Amino acid sequence: METRRRADRARQVADLLRGQIVDGQYGRGRLPREAALARDFRISRNTVRAALDLLREEGLVERCPGVGTTVAAEKYPHGLHRLLGLAETLHEHGEVVNLVRTMTLIEPPAAVSQRLRVPPGEQVVYLERLRRLNGVPLSLDLTYLVREVGEPLFDADLAHNDIFVLLEAIAGQPLGTAELSLEAVNADAHTAAALEAPRGAALLMVERLTHLSDGRPVDLEFIRFRGDRLTMRGHLNRE
Amino acid sequence: METRRRADRARQVADLLRGQIVDGQYGRGRLPREAALARDFRISRNTVRAALDLLREEGLVERCPGVGTTVAAEKYPHGLHRLLGLAETLHEHGEVVNLVRTMTLIEPPAAVSQRLRVPPGEQVVYLERLRRLNGVPLSLDLTYLVREVGEPLFDADLAHNDIFVLLEAIAGQPLGTAELSLEAVNADAHTAAALEAPRGAALLMVERLTHLSDGRPVDLEFIRFRGDRLTMRGHLNRE
Repeated sequence: METRRRADRARQVADLLRGQIVDGQYGRGRLPREAALARDFRISRNTVRAALDLLREEGLVERCPGVGTTVAAEKYPHGLHRLLGLAETLHEHGEVVNLVRTMTLIEPPAAVSQRLRVPPGEQVVYLERLRRLNGVPLSLDLTYLVREVGEPLFDADLAHNDIFVLLEAIAGQPLGTAELSLEAVNADAHTAAALEAPRGAALLMVERLTHLSDGRPVDLEFIRFRGDRLTMRGHLNRE
Repeated sequence: METRRRADRARQVADLLRGQIVDGQYGRGRLPREAALARDFRISRNTVRAALDLLREEGLVERCPGVGTTVAAEKYPHGLHRLLGLAETLHEHGEVVNLVRTMTLIEPPAAVSQRLRVPPGEQVVYLERLRRLNGVPLSLDLTYLVREVGEPLFDADLAHNDIFVLLEAIAGQPLGTAELSLEAVNADAHTAAALEAPRGAALLMVERLTHLSDGRPVDLEFIRFRGDRLTMRGHLNRE
């Protein structure tokens, strides 16, 4: 690797360290010293510093002269193996509290009514929540719900419950399948402010249409996760 | 929604338009005029403009006075329902061509040898590729392969083949399961340059450890997808 550019080697090492940090190998504690990392990865200390700078730019570590490099913030694993609400998937990591920013009946645009299979003119419930884990903003969620299952939510404790769990109680049946898409987008100024992240911060954007087990689509969500706080984890099979 | 801030309404509309654009509803063509969008979404034209500005910032649309709003670039769907290589999942969308930036035998750091279950001191193949679809950079892939399946790749046509397909031919068995994690990160300056994206652009980062069907881990990859070019699509079940 000697002849490759330092930036390429730094990226390579940063990826390996990122995996170890997200796996919790260093907890919320200190990374090995630069000299030890240089030895482990068979690279120069300048390249170690460049790799740590990349992770600092991602908000994953902090670097203090004399103290070394410490893990700046926990990155939480969101299960991608089955359909789970945020509080369900993070229950081992702390308490999820939701701030309801908006909740109202709306006449949905065609882009919503078509996906929720709602006749033209029929209202749906629109809900906007800022979701925090242990006080830290994790996601901003925009949710459209068919009226039948959405309207009872006006009386529910939305601050402390996942929509999924409430929907199953209301519908009297489990959820079935969800179609989802995952994208990376930069935070616009207002979203960044809501999520207490820098403008332009990378967000993991999830669009998810959830059906009841009887097949009816009931819940269309647009979720912006802070990229520096969340990792989606799952597995795929070849066949 | 009247009393909500314009930025909140704009985000809401941008999410619905993004879904339609990614679904190909407008092809590579023109979006409806501002007045029509304002009517469809029951919002002011100023809010329509704010929503279109958000999509322009994401690189999804272009706006020209007199011409209107056009789709700037195709966003390709990467299947998340089963384990697929890039050329496999995008075969309907064009030709994937890979530029090999580096390919070499290395003594892997512990973070690699542990995951690939390689004894200390045993070498692995390290491979770095820039992957393009129809000439447009889609991803930068850093790959570690156990020597047994990696070394034959020195003689393979890596420019025009997915690693997955080559590995199955070399190993004489299909791949099995892959563990993956998905994150959103901002592009550092050098990665941005390689991907021909702006510095700080949101990237979809995939870490993936792939096993042969007999259970042996053989392929550890760190993949940075351009966020403005790729959407991961799949479904999840509740049970």
